[in-house]
Amino acid sequence: MSHVKVQVPAMKSFCMEVFEKFGFTEEESRIITGVLLMADVYGIESHGAQRLVRYHKGIQSGMIKVDAKPEVVFETPVSAVIDGHEGMGQLIGHFAMELAIKKAKTAGIGIVTVRESNHYGIAGYYAKMACDEGLIGISSTNSEAIVVPTFGKQAMLGTNPIAFAMPADPYPFLFDASTSIVTRGKFEMYNKAEKPVPEGWGVDENGHPCTDPGRVLSNIKAHAGGGISPLGGASELTGSHKGYGNAMVAEIFTSILSMGMTSNYNLLNGHGGTCHLCAAIDPAIFGDKDAIIAHLSTFLEELRESPKREGHDRIYTHGEKEVFAEKDRLVNGIDVDVKTLEEMEDCAEYTGVDFNKYFGNLGVKVHFDPSEHTQY
Amino acid sequence: MSHVKVQVPAMKSFCMEVFEKFGFTEEESRIITGVLLMADVYGIESHGAQRLVRYHKGIQSGMIKVDAKPEVVFETPVSAVIDGHEGMGQLIGHFAMELAIKKAKTAGIGIVTVRESNHYGIAGYYAKMACDEGLIGISSTNSEAIVVPTFGKQAMLGTNPIAFAMPADPYPFLFDASTSIVTRGKFEMYNKAEKPVPEGWGVDENGHPCTDPGRVLSNIKAHAGGGISPLGGASELTGSHKGYGNAMVAEIFTSILSMGMTSNYNLLNGHGGTCHLCAAIDPAIFGDKDAIIAHLSTFLEELRESPKREGHDRIYTHGEKEVFAEKDRLVNGIDVDVKTLEEMEDCAEYTGVDFNKYFGNLGVKVHFDPSEHTQY
Repeated sequence: MSHVKVQVPAMKSFCMEVFEKFGFTEEESRIITGVLLMADVYGIESHGAQRLVRYHKGIQSGMIKVDAKPEVVFETPVSAVIDGHEGMGQLIGHFAMELAIKKAKTAGIGIVTVRESNHYGIAGYYAKMACDEGLIGISSTNSEAIVVPTFGKQAMLGTNPIAFAMPADPYPFLFDASTSIVTRGKFEMYNKAEKPVPEGWGVDENGHPCTDPGRVLSNIKAHAGGGISPLGGASELTGSHKGYGNAMVAEIFTSILSMGMTSNYNLLNGHGGTCHLCAAIDPAIFGDKDAIIAHLSTFLEELRESPKREGHDRIYTHGEKEVFAEKDRLVNGIDVDVKTLEEMEDCAEYTGVDFNKYFGNLGVKVHFDPSEHTQY
Repeated sequence: MSHVKVQVPAMKSFCMEVFEKFGFTEEESRIITGVLLMADVYGIESHGAQRLVRYHKGIQSGMIKVDAKPEVVFETPVSAVIDGHEGMGQLIGHFAMELAIKKAKTAGIGIVTVRESNHYGIAGYYAKMACDEGLIGISSTNSEAIVVPTFGKQAMLGTNPIAFAMPADPYPFLFDASTSIVTRGKFEMYNKAEKPVPEGWGVDENGHPCTDPGRVLSNIKAHAGGGISPLGGASELTGSHKGYGNAMVAEIFTSILSMGMTSNYNLLNGHGGTCHLCAAIDPAIFGDKDAIIAHLSTFLEELRESPKREGHDRIYTHGEKEVFAEKDRLVNGIDVDVKTLEEMEDCAEYTGVDFNKYFGNLGVKVHFDPSEHTQY
């Protein structure tokens, strides 16, 4: 498959205009665009512009309500529950994390759960919001059930990512990963590239291992059974029950503690019903904040400096690859595959945005191998 | 390998007497015995009586200080930091979770971190303490570095389990798992049974895959390199970086936020330095507690009732196997392998306990296959 390099400012301006045309305010469009762009500049292409088509379709169908405003329906000094009223996930997530940060700054901790939202992009964005304020940030979301529990053959869980961020020098610790072995975005990338997925990633409608990404994706779409394996694969011997347990913890902190829809009810009958967690913790409630952050920085450095496996010249700490990717993308542009570009053009046409104004003069097409993109 | 069935009351009385002989009070001995026995009755034999030898050696060498009392060195209404002063891990963990529960009952949340402790047994015990009080319980611990980060060949992380418990009907959700693909206890069980471990579980001193449990264990003991893989195995394609990230989150909530020793310094030069997390959250800070617990119970039931994979007749929710194991063990006794029994006899001799008084009349020896024990 071919892809093109798109400069960050062009993509940013395009997304801003698209979301404003959809009816969001300038400030709202800036938040939504910020979440999408962070995924692309961090090298998590599966969650960036590639997802624009979903927001486009969600708004078009009425599943995402442009005018909805998040409402705090329950609150204590250390917690809150928000009803998103089926609005845009990024705006609700942003609102929830701002509230969690405010609580953490006064009470030391803020845990905010959200129900009745929609897909909110990368969980890491929200965790990073808290981290940028000198706090520990945690965010999670449930999602459409596409993950099959250990010994099951029907998807009952979302890919349910959990993101965790904490300040450190020279760069923060930022861990953002689905609790499934991979996300649907990775299956889509392999499918677009017409390559089989590795053994263990998915199961077919009978619960048997399946390496055909198209079959797994079409089964998911048709609710025909099967889906993606939890982290740890399909067998207890490789820890399937642990990934399944991690997904359950995400489910509890999102849908259960917000009295929202569990993943197995998400996105049915044109209703999103997605639930999130946004939490912030001030490290100062455990003593000398600077000393604690220095302690983490030292350990991260020791990990990076520890002996490497044959064939590998570095050990990454989480968030490090994103820092390097961001430096690269800001100079060299972001990778957008041609199918995504077509979807963007559709979206431009629907909203009345001049696509050629932004992307009339694109770079050289090169070969794109999804197996090089191991994130998520 | 052969094992014997030991009745729970006999094992309980034996452990009580041993720990009292070591110098612990009756109440302290009851707590320590309670943690060990919970592992055995829950079917997590790798963390029950099989570990007695380590506490024996730890006390004998002076690494575990029998008279040490945990001290609260920093505190806020929602948090505390405890210095364990190198005491017995179970007593420090129990003290920490009692404090977390007290805070959760007044402030809604209590997060307690611990430094300078020792091995505290199964993390699930502490999470369950909070659950028994109607709260969400979370516990984690770091441990001797025996887990190799993605692309590394030197163990830098402990198996760093994270346990999570929440009340539900008819039984609670109790998820307790190491963030490694398996624990050392599982390697020890395979080694005692003289069976190779599955591919992906461990790496040798050069970072190459290794299925010989004896080699991995002796390398760990000699600090010769290699060790156990994170959950997700040794490759990013199967999510190795995610298990490594989970281990890091455990590390942050134990050693970093307590200013204690990170796993790579644990158990060096006869100093434990183990760090824990004990946290409790009252579900009532998110609304109607009964409704929230009923919501979880419904979802757990839906999971158990969802369609099964060919060759499997049930889907477990976390904590369910433990409930069944407990019912069985209380009637039929717990599994103890012969090597463990010998270690128990050594311990009895050292402390002056009459071994035959408890175990003079043991049951029939049967074949023991560690691959049937998938927990941990």
